Amino acid sequence: MAQLLSSSCSLTICSRNKPYLKPFNNCSTLFSITLACNNSKTPFRRLFLQEQKPRKGSLVVHAAAVSTSQETPVQTSSGDPFKPQRVMVIGGDGYCGWATALHLSNKGYEVAIVDSLVRRLFDHQLGLDSLTPISSIQNRLQRWKSLTGKTIELYIGDICDFEFLSETFKSYEPDAVVHFGEQRSAPYSMIDRSRAVYTQQNNVIGTLNVLFAIKEFREQCHLVKLGTMGEYGTPNIDIEEGYITITHNGRTDTLPYPKQASSFYHLSKVHDSHNIAFTCKAWGIRATDLNQGVVYGVRTDETAMHEELYNRFDYDGIFGTALNRFCVQAAVGHPLTVYGKGGQTRGFLDIRDTVQCVELAIANPAKPGEFRVFNQFTEQFSVNQLANLVTKAGEKLGIEVKTINVPNPRVEAEEHYYNCKNTKLVDLGLRPHFLSDSLLDSLLNFAVQYKDRVDTKQIMPSVSWKKIGVKTKTVPPKKLGGGGGGGYIWLLA
Amino acid sequence: MAQLLSSSCSLTICSRNKPYLKPFNNCSTLFSITLACNNSKTPFRRLFLQEQKPRKGSLVVHAAAVSTSQETPVQTSSGDPFKPQRVMVIGGDGYCGWATALHLSNKGYEVAIVDSLVRRLFDHQLGLDSLTPISSIQNRLQRWKSLTGKTIELYIGDICDFEFLSETFKSYEPDAVVHFGEQRSAPYSMIDRSRAVYTQQNNVIGTLNVLFAIKEFREQCHLVKLGTMGEYGTPNIDIEEGYITITHNGRTDTLPYPKQASSFYHLSKVHDSHNIAFTCKAWGIRATDLNQGVVYGVRTDETAMHEELYNRFDYDGIFGTALNRFCVQAAVGHPLTVYGKGGQTRGFLDIRDTVQCVELAIANPAKPGEFRVFNQFTEQFSVNQLANLVTKAGEKLGIEVKTINVPNPRVEAEEHYYNCKNTKLVDLGLRPHFLSDSLLDSLLNFAVQYKDRVDTKQIMPSVSWKKIGVKTKTVPPKKLGGGGGGGYIWLLA
Repeated sequence: MAQLLSSSCSLTICSRNKPYLKPFNNCSTLFSITLACNNSKTPFRRLFLQEQKPRKGSLVVHAAAVSTSQETPVQTSSGDPFKPQRVMVIGGDGYCGWATALHLSNKGYEVAIVDSLVRRLFDHQLGLDSLTPISSIQNRLQRWKSLTGKTIELYIGDICDFEFLSETFKSYEPDAVVHFGEQRSAPYSMIDRSRAVYTQQNNVIGTLNVLFAIKEFREQCHLVKLGTMGEYGTPNIDIEEGYITITHNGRTDTLPYPKQASSFYHLSKVHDSHNIAFTCKAWGIRATDLNQGVVYGVRTDETAMHEELYNRFDYDGIFGTALNRFCVQAAVGHPLTVYGKGGQTRGFLDIRDTVQCVELAIANPAKPGEFRVFNQFTEQFSVNQLANLVTKAGEKLGIEVKTINVPNPRVEAEEHYYNCKNTKLVDLGLRPHFLSDSLLDSLLNFAVQYKDRVDTKQIMPSVSWKKIGVKTKTVPPKKLGGGGGGGYIWLLA
Repeated sequence: MAQLLSSSCSLTICSRNKPYLKPFNNCSTLFSITLACNNSKTPFRRLFLQEQKPRKGSLVVHAAAVSTSQETPVQTSSGDPFKPQRVMVIGGDGYCGWATALHLSNKGYEVAIVDSLVRRLFDHQLGLDSLTPISSIQNRLQRWKSLTGKTIELYIGDICDFEFLSETFKSYEPDAVVHFGEQRSAPYSMIDRSRAVYTQQNNVIGTLNVLFAIKEFREQCHLVKLGTMGEYGTPNIDIEEGYITITHNGRTDTLPYPKQASSFYHLSKVHDSHNIAFTCKAWGIRATDLNQGVVYGVRTDETAMHEELYNRFDYDGIFGTALNRFCVQAAVGHPLTVYGKGGQTRGFLDIRDTVQCVELAIANPAKPGEFRVFNQFTEQFSVNQLANLVTKAGEKLGIEVKTINVPNPRVEAEEHYYNCKNTKLVDLGLRPHFLSDSLLDSLLNFAVQYKDRVDTKQIMPSVSWKKIGVKTKTVPPKKLGGGGGGGYIWLLA
């Protein structure tokens, strides 16, 4: 799969009206070509190929889609209407990334999405699909433009390909990089050896490349990196935000909080955190590590504006997070599947708070050389508590919800102490959405609305932490039929 | 470079007399071919190609060199003469790996070396050379056989290539794997982006592959993994062995000791430690992480037996460790180069203790599921203390030794608290060699003996932690001459 990604697409679809350029109603075209798009109502009328200095050994087509209507540059907090902050959202076609890109655009930031679109490939390969139908990234951006007049640039490629990433940095010149561009599923990383290796290679090398790109091309750029609360594991002491002050044998120091990750995915984030911390110290990189909890919900103000802007909603056993999956199960009359005893407790947050937190981090950047860690969640729940909440919410809608305990496919403590600090983002101004207020509205009703799209075969866990092996799980066993011995991924559900 | 390695050589030069096979004086050959070797005194007379089941899509040539003299299997501590422990030494052609492979072989273990020989390639690429002339791995093993009658098997390939590694595991069936097979130089990892990425990719993926190979093919196999004391950094509290008990807000837990590595190389070892710890917990892997200090010296009982067994001795700015480099500087009349203030304090050990420690770890394996961490060093010194010791030792030999402080190419504290625990290996029976006893004998006299081979251009630091960039450092700048602007690696010294 890494090989597949390395031949990344270098086509940049770039819709930039730099505010310091004179706005225009008609553009002069070098090459006028027709934009092939699914939606004929797009406001884009023309594409032109921007002239670029030929670069030895590289072939970059930079196609700019230009609006025919005049745009007013957004006033930003800096007070300078001609220099809004330029934010690059890596992984901006994904679940959190898409919502964040729209939110930042709506808030007046200039935004570019950098994405290889490999998340869509995973769905194809594993036979999965979002509960919500999602549009292509091209249609998403055109719809956003038509509704708001705001342009989000698009750079399609793999950040593990440094040639692509460096061209992207030199072209876009970001002030902040929000880095969601990683393989983000723990079960995916535990499918087989090749996915475990892919996850660590992709995540660690991609982040190293981003760090080198910042150092080389944009040294003042603020890196906002998505980590995970899963980096900490479940220690028997309070979890602090990134660091802990330890007194030991009469001496005291404040050190990185010890990490105990429990999947190759979570481990990749631990590796990233260590790498980033080092570059802050050695090179003066400014970075914020957002150790995010489990995100639930699908609607944000921006994605709710049009169905072509709808966010993906994963409920399957590989990419679906616990609460989203429970709501879909309730909607289709499938028992809620609690893994093991259900005492597993985690931090959770509404996706509307994810986008708020990222905005707060960007608006209040880390200092040069600072490696800042925020725990990004708003409430703690155990899996059993979530199941109870969904059961009660179901009652209000007249849905009978049952719960079953299934063997835990993961290796994790099922009863444990858990108390995590999360004050830093609140101190910066986070106004949380609480689950009790949004469960019915943003989640359960939504799941009911789309329940005809549910593939119930995808609900049960299909990946076992203990049974992971070296054989590729997408190759069928020699004798097909009869349950797919050997753990063929299609037949596990 | 990763690409270069991926097309690894699958030629296995395998000299195995399994003790349960009847020893023979004459071997029957399928294909009798002449062994091309540099040394005509080799006891190997014939090579034959072992018959193998043809494997779809793979071409493995398994060539067995068979001694014409009868071997007596070694009596081991298990008391079973027919089942000595089988140890695989990954990276067994390197500085620590070679000494360890010979030592274990001498102590009665069956030993196989697995190595891609890429360390020799680094020397070619960077224009470096060992102070001591070293033989090819093939000649080394033939000499060992001729001197001792003991066979060390050789598997040449890259452990990042899982196809190679799995064939190796299935063929050799190790009881213990000693894993030295990583890029092990901090300055190398800080040369340029491609070396930083190579180091982390090579080390992290190689170790992941070893973990998967153990799980899949030899689940009782004990992994003895070389970590580094550099994983801990220089905290202002005592450094424990792998774990620290923390009392925080009235609760107590024993957690992994916080890591603060200070190069992409050291970080790769931190990543490995986290990955290994997870697999011990999730899969029941048994592992020992040897957090080794700075190794000095070159002679062990075994390498001293013949000049074809001599170990490498690196004194250059990239692979040379501090004390080895100082001794070479003293021998050639070059001032000792203390980086910065010289208060940097680290743990050190004699290479004779490295091999002892590994043997102790193997002889006393970790339990299934246990992730055991030993701090592997015998004494602590600051760089200034080392310089003083070498200066005094020089006086005894009539050598005038000067010291200069050069700008520190690294980012590190130059005055700091440092107190590390190292009792676990002593408790297992380690009998340390102390520096005061071996400095003259094993180090300085040795450096004097080979001083005509010193390339003084390689002594000064050529890699800067802060100046590392994305440009490949082995490509000359456009205008050659005049000091090599752009940091061309050849011209920095």
